[in-house]
Amino acid sequence: MSILVVGSVAFDSIETPHGRVEHVLGGAATFFSLSASYFTDVRVIGVVGEDFTTENEAVLTRRGIDTRGLEHVEGKSFHWTGSYLKNLNEAQTLKTELNVFETFAPKIPAVYEDSEFLFLANIDPVLQANVRRQMPGVKMVCGDTMNYWIHDHRENLNKVLVGLDVLLINDGEAKMLAGDDNLLRAAGKILAAGPKSLIIKHGEYGATAFFSDRSFVVEGAPKNGSGPAALLSVPFRAPALPLDTVVDPTGAGDSFAGGFFGYLASQPEVTLPAFKRAMFYGGVMGSFAVEKFGTERLQQLSREEIDQRFSRFREMSHLD
Amino acid sequence: MSILVVGSVAFDSIETPHGRVEHVLGGAATFFSLSASYFTDVRVIGVVGEDFTTENEAVLTRRGIDTRGLEHVEGKSFHWTGSYLKNLNEAQTLKTELNVFETFAPKIPAVYEDSEFLFLANIDPVLQANVRRQMPGVKMVCGDTMNYWIHDHRENLNKVLVGLDVLLINDGEAKMLAGDDNLLRAAGKILAAGPKSLIIKHGEYGATAFFSDRSFVVEGAPKNGSGPAALLSVPFRAPALPLDTVVDPTGAGDSFAGGFFGYLASQPEVTLPAFKRAMFYGGVMGSFAVEKFGTERLQQLSREEIDQRFSRFREMSHLD
Repeated sequence: MSILVVGSVAFDSIETPHGRVEHVLGGAATFFSLSASYFTDVRVIGVVGEDFTTENEAVLTRRGIDTRGLEHVEGKSFHWTGSYLKNLNEAQTLKTELNVFETFAPKIPAVYEDSEFLFLANIDPVLQANVRRQMPGVKMVCGDTMNYWIHDHRENLNKVLVGLDVLLINDGEAKMLAGDDNLLRAAGKILAAGPKSLIIKHGEYGATAFFSDRSFVVEGAPKNGSGPAALLSVPFRAPALPLDTVVDPTGAGDSFAGGFFGYLASQPEVTLPAFKRAMFYGGVMGSFAVEKFGTERLQQLSREEIDQRFSRFREMSHLD
Repeated sequence: MSILVVGSVAFDSIETPHGRVEHVLGGAATFFSLSASYFTDVRVIGVVGEDFTTENEAVLTRRGIDTRGLEHVEGKSFHWTGSYLKNLNEAQTLKTELNVFETFAPKIPAVYEDSEFLFLANIDPVLQANVRRQMPGVKMVCGDTMNYWIHDHRENLNKVLVGLDVLLINDGEAKMLAGDDNLLRAAGKILAAGPKSLIIKHGEYGATAFFSDRSFVVEGAPKNGSGPAALLSVPFRAPALPLDTVVDPTGAGDSFAGGFFGYLASQPEVTLPAFKRAMFYGGVMGSFAVEKFGTERLQQLSREEIDQRFSRFREMSHLD
């Protein structure tokens, strides 16, 4: 089934202990799309400027990604400059040039309206809610956000949360969103605020999924307690691959999201077992993304490589 | 098979956000022994003072722990005072009164000499090496240490590392010991220094085991590369249980060690599958330990509760 993704298509300039690159293709929607393209059809909505070349677009279309929703406008594309020299686990933003992204108003092409899965990448929650409203018939919605929206745009974000099947955030964001330093309690509070499920990413330690009892996951999902904040008794934890070299962490989270949601959209039904496998695929795609600068590694994968690494994740975490 | 544990038997005074206790039974050997006692026979070597009561000793003997190696001497027992008010993940030591522990010289009773498993809890590496030498016929040795010994007693510690089958430390200790901030590289460097396997504990994120290719683990262990620092291609990651309430983190690591090593000693053979299950039991026992103050929770468990939680760990981490 088709995934529609709305988010940034951008250029990144990045320095890490392994080198630096200038003005390479990046952006949340780009990493997400490339990652998901190994599993299912992907349609992208975003905005780029005149510096976005035919070759840049070909990186997406070569992977079969539908770019008819990529708006080309006058001016320069979003350009992010960041450094991982101080801390490989956390980007230090050196410069954010929003450029054409500043006035981004997502338009959904008619040919995209039958998309069954919707991914709302990390953008202004007002835009996220707007897109969500325009896609009432969508089967499943997954969304991302970040500290800035959590801290300064909470009311708008709350309107997005109620419409999500899956919220995908990291430890720090979850604690900030819930106002609670304990992850399990934070998960309960966040689920009470709307999303039917929550995946909290722990970086090199993997990710944990929590489900509310209003969960869309029907088959095989044991129920526990009642009330809006009740959690399924057993959350699910997926591992991450220990890596000796992380060349560039940029886009790891969006690649996780692409692997997770792309795999889920490829399945005949959204069940708890499929959700769990999808989390493993998320970890797999995140582990590939960081092996090279920018989107380079995500451009050259094979499904065979992906499934081999999936087997490694299983071997690494399963008793038998 | 019998486990011999050498380490501290002490009193702890602890404050956490959930309350405070004064002078309750604690110490690494105590937590380890109680935890391991649910799986196998345990013999303890330690030293206590005149304040150590018959009732204190009965906490151990009621669980079938052999305390004939617990030396009673004049003076006061080791007393640790710590606080978790600032950070539930890291103890702040307020006072360390070594008392009779300061001159602790482990003596191995003749009746302990046929012990097949040896656990060297976190004590002076000179004493650890000394005990190790006196137990040449032991089948398997597992050891713990801490930042103080890593930083200030490295040469002595190195002599211990070469004699270990399993080194059990946490993230920070592993990075300090290896002088490397990347966990996978740190694991390779530590294994090159001697221990045949290494378990790195990640607190609420679980634990990861790394194996050298000189590993004692024979059955089912795929080999990878050559040379002393080569790692098995796939490390093993065990989850930890997300908990909404941690009453008292004291002893969680030693309880993990007790569950891990106790289960392993209970198995007919040390194989890779048994090692993996043992790591799950380690996490299980650690998760129980923190539910109440001191050793309280570890005194009242049943094997049925333990195995139920083991099933939960499996469900939480396995795809099917």
